[in-house]
Amino acid sequence: METDTVMINSVFILICTAMVILMTLAVGFFYGGLVRKKNLISMLTLSFVSVALVSIQWVVVGYSLAFGPDIGGLIGGLDYFMLQGVGMSGEPVPDMLFMMFQLSFAAIALAIITSAVAERIKLSSFIIFGLLWTTFIYDPLAHWVWGGGWAYSMGILDFAGGIVVHIGAGFGALALALVIGSRLGFGEHNLEPHNIPLTLLGGALLWFGWFGFNSGSALAMNEIAINAFVVTNISAAAGALSWMVASWIHGKPSSLGMISGAVAGLGAITPAAGFVGPMSAICIGAISGLLCYGALLFRLEHNWDESLDAWAIHGVGGVWGTIAIGLFAVPAIGGISGLIVGGYSQIVLQIVGALAAILFAFIGTLILAKGVDMVFGLRVTTEEEYVGLDISQHGETIN
Amino acid sequence: METDTVMINSVFILICTAMVILMTLAVGFFYGGLVRKKNLISMLTLSFVSVALVSIQWVVVGYSLAFGPDIGGLIGGLDYFMLQGVGMSGEPVPDMLFMMFQLSFAAIALAIITSAVAERIKLSSFIIFGLLWTTFIYDPLAHWVWGGGWAYSMGILDFAGGIVVHIGAGFGALALALVIGSRLGFGEHNLEPHNIPLTLLGGALLWFGWFGFNSGSALAMNEIAINAFVVTNISAAAGALSWMVASWIHGKPSSLGMISGAVAGLGAITPAAGFVGPMSAICIGAISGLLCYGALLFRLEHNWDESLDAWAIHGVGGVWGTIAIGLFAVPAIGGISGLIVGGYSQIVLQIVGALAAILFAFIGTLILAKGVDMVFGLRVTTEEEYVGLDISQHGETIN
Amino acid sequence: METDTVMINSVFILICTAMVILMTLAVGFFYGGLVRKKNLISMLTLSFVSVALVSIQWVVVGYSLAFGPDIGGLIGGLDYFMLQGVGMSGEPVPDMLFMMFQLSFAAIALAIITSAVAERIKLSSFIIFGLLWTTFIYDPLAHWVWGGGWAYSMGILDFAGGIVVHIGAGFGALALALVIGSRLGFGEHNLEPHNIPLTLLGGALLWFGWFGFNSGSALAMNEIAINAFVVTNISAAAGALSWMVASWIHGKPSSLGMISGAVAGLGAITPAAGFVGPMSAICIGAISGLLCYGALLFRLEHNWDESLDAWAIHGVGGVWGTIAIGLFAVPAIGGISGLIVGGYSQIVLQIVGALAAILFAFIGTLILAKGVDMVFGLRVTTEEEYVGLDISQHGETIN
Repeated sequence: METDTVMINSVFILICTAMVILMTLAVGFFYGGLVRKKNLISMLTLSFVSVALVSIQWVVVGYSLAFGPDIGGLIGGLDYFMLQGVGMSGEPVPDMLFMMFQLSFAAIALAIITSAVAERIKLSSFIIFGLLWTTFIYDPLAHWVWGGGWAYSMGILDFAGGIVVHIGAGFGALALALVIGSRLGFGEHNLEPHNIPLTLLGGALLWFGWFGFNSGSALAMNEIAINAFVVTNISAAAGALSWMVASWIHGKPSSLGMISGAVAGLGAITPAAGFVGPMSAICIGAISGLLCYGALLFRLEHNWDESLDAWAIHGVGGVWGTIAIGLFAVPAIGGISGLIVGGYSQIVLQIVGALAAILFAFIGTLILAKGVDMVFGLRVTTEEEYVGLDISQHGETIN
Repeated sequence: METDTVMINSVFILICTAMVILMTLAVGFFYGGLVRKKNLISMLTLSFVSVALVSIQWVVVGYSLAFGPDIGGLIGGLDYFMLQGVGMSGEPVPDMLFMMFQLSFAAIALAIITSAVAERIKLSSFIIFGLLWTTFIYDPLAHWVWGGGWAYSMGILDFAGGIVVHIGAGFGALALALVIGSRLGFGEHNLEPHNIPLTLLGGALLWFGWFGFNSGSALAMNEIAINAFVVTNISAAAGALSWMVASWIHGKPSSLGMISGAVAGLGAITPAAGFVGPMSAICIGAISGLLCYGALLFRLEHNWDESLDAWAIHGVGGVWGTIAIGLFAVPAIGGISGLIVGGYSQIVLQIVGALAAILFAFIGTLILAKGVDMVFGLRVTTEEEYVGLDISQHGETIN
Repeated sequence: METDTVMINSVFILICTAMVILMTLAVGFFYGGLVRKKNLISMLTLSFVSVALVSIQWVVVGYSLAFGPDIGGLIGGLDYFMLQGVGMSGEPVPDMLFMMFQLSFAAIALAIITSAVAERIKLSSFIIFGLLWTTFIYDPLAHWVWGGGWAYSMGILDFAGGIVVHIGAGFGALALALVIGSRLGFGEHNLEPHNIPLTLLGGALLWFGWFGFNSGSALAMNEIAINAFVVTNISAAAGALSWMVASWIHGKPSSLGMISGAVAGLGAITPAAGFVGPMSAICIGAISGLLCYGALLFRLEHNWDESLDAWAIHGVGGVWGTIAIGLFAVPAIGGISGLIVGGYSQIVLQIVGALAAILFAFIGTLILAKGVDMVFGLRVTTEEEYVGLDISQHGETIN
């Protein structure tokens, strides 16, 4: 806290962190509205448990693995184990606050992944899986891209987590869904959302929190933070409208399409928010709405029960946004030139980064999930699944 | 971002903007609790769509119409079309951030107006109406009062949107309601709120967001911002209590009366928050609760189906607050003298401003709504209205 | 607003205040989910009414009683009656903003106390009781600890309200519950929570708002504020996990246990957040989850209908956190040495402070509640209680 600038940045990042924690808890409401009533409490609890687990994991070991001194470009050292040496100096914000801001990103990645196991995960196994996934998938990914790892060294860009959070969680969710298998009755019975207003409430809080997520990723109050805020809102709006219109062509304009499109727009602008301008954000968001909607239809055709579309929305949106940096970046905003201003190299790097993250998250999660499944069993019994997780896992119900 | 002061202001306004966006989405929850269950998803979606539409309209053309170089005191020029020339310089906050803050105001005005068409609007027509209303009613009003137009030149004051947002949306809502006509069964059947807790949730988020709305309208962290925060809370409290007590005299103290009174207090203090002190805020809020409650009863007596009382609460509250500047302003706070300190001129200006906005918003919206109705039809079919908008407009339902 | 530092602090504290107001309204949602459906609107309204009442009481007289010039170590003088002399100078934030921040604390204390009278309080009597309780219990407590009273002079520490808010409200709730008596059917019929998701929503907003509550209690953007933020999150997480695991041993890991544990962790870290480090916060939170869970079981065994566990969670958690300062404080953070670094004196002070607050809040509330009960009657009639407070007190219902 040597300077006024650090103080100013700290106010900004501290409030942004609170917003991202709220947003992480709100993931449960977004997903909770999409499941059947008998699994609502379970769905909500998984997001809260994600925050609680990662909050402990991160201060004990996660932060150090992600942001400790680089070991071979792959992982951070344990120098910051139990926050040793993480203090109140540092710029643009004190290390301790940076640690806390990053904690909220690790937490939301795990919350997003709960999409994959909706309505059938055994709580105890989720806790084990969650700790392992954060430690062995999320932390390395964060290190690669943000912590001084190989991707960072190559110049692969990810402003606020398109690769680390959205590709990581989205493709992780797909792998996890394939391991745990489809819900009973998937493809046969009606598994429709039971409480769309709850999903919209979650969506409203996500929209709010995402400003902290993207704008705060500038880590300082500067022009990039303001740009990130503006393009985040624009991309959300464009995604909401494009998906809504696309679903209109197929039938009626659903509110779920609208809010899914908003999240698709938010996910896509996440990696790009520090590099692209407002008019590009209209394109990025609108295209993301269409792409993610297409991905959802593709998933349904292929009978993948990645149940609440973390893959289609966060995964595909994250890939699109990561590549979009290479298309739309303009040097006046973040110093990077995309194809529209004649820059040919960044897009190659972005594709490399996206592909590496896809492979690592997908294969890594596949292995982890298989392991946990073999040792502990990921899934509740058939009877427990019929009864619903609220009663079978929590002994609770909604009157 | 030349100075620390601009950075400090920017942190403040950026967070306030996020709060106003959340508040705008929360308008849907406030209204959603007041309609019948079959129209809840529709009501929620209208607020989200308002944000999405205005987010695009504003960056393309709306900001320029409102804040572009003045043309004859009436409208801004298209110099800022597609945000050309809107950059990161400017005081007290960078232009780009000012643009974004103002975007959230334009969005909430449209969200408030959805009150008028609850349970019977055709979604496609709302989208067309919304774009037209924002462009031809909201943008000029904002220009008149804040963008250097005639009202601004005359010295008519509106700190945070009593004229622009609340009179504009409140009287616009009344005109729109008269054009679209009453809901089927209005005055005959029970059209009671189906989910009061949802309205209270929306109300809680409105109360929260309103701090960003009013306090942020200082555009800088200064004494006026702090004063605005304090009087906003006081007026909300006083309005909540006065309406609650008034409804108690007529029967029982309803929670809807309490929260409606809070919003009435919030609406009334909005134009005045930079000019009046805490004890005046008690009067302004308490009187607003009573006036708006009276307006609601007046509306019901006259069988106007301005369905969720945007007119009675935002319109009447906005008028009262606009005039209250001329009564309660003290020079130590905002440099203006109201009647209580012997200033006679401001109140005349305020009445002129309120009347002009009432006439413009009411007549302008009447014409626009008639036009859209004739060309596209504002209203769903009778069958669709019976079935409810959730199914007929969105193909969705709540299980 | 003489300096940039005051401006920076003001942005921080202004936003924190908004967060605490939201959190106070959210108390109603937390509690509302725990009652039966026929009392949900009542439960929500009590929190809104708490905010409204205290907002007026505080600016008229409460702030002066708490923070006016000390009279005999017991109470503040009326120098600041109706905010006379409360201006825009002052450090680290302007007096007017400090007043507003403290207002939100007074409001939440009253909101917490509504736990005690759930499902049976007469609204009119709550209004009278609430005004008296804030004036005669909360304001003196705040003065003792923060306003220059005897506890402050002795060096008793309470960073963000463990004594003032949580012991005050928690033990006040217990006394109030004993006076008003158990709900009809308590111990015989099923009085189970009707809407756990609503409680989780309230819990999410509490978690969010608590960052403003604890971190903002530094009153400035500095290292203590950042430390408070980090330990707040850690303690919430640890409490959530410890209570969840403890309830798991007794049966199934309930979501209510998880969120109750989070609040227990938040309450316990509140007094200590400016004095202890992150690893101590794991201990404080985890132990608080276990202690408060134990207190809840103790309450149930003794058939105390302190209905929604303000005593078990806020009261017991607050006591534990107050004492924990004497155990875990390290001088590098807040200048205080606890037992773990060989400091023996602070813990004695903390125990004295906790005991004094327990006695004052419990006995004082007992007397006040008895008085109000004798004069006005605290409780609705048996018939009204059967029908539910939504209809009997508010004339409203949920369709």
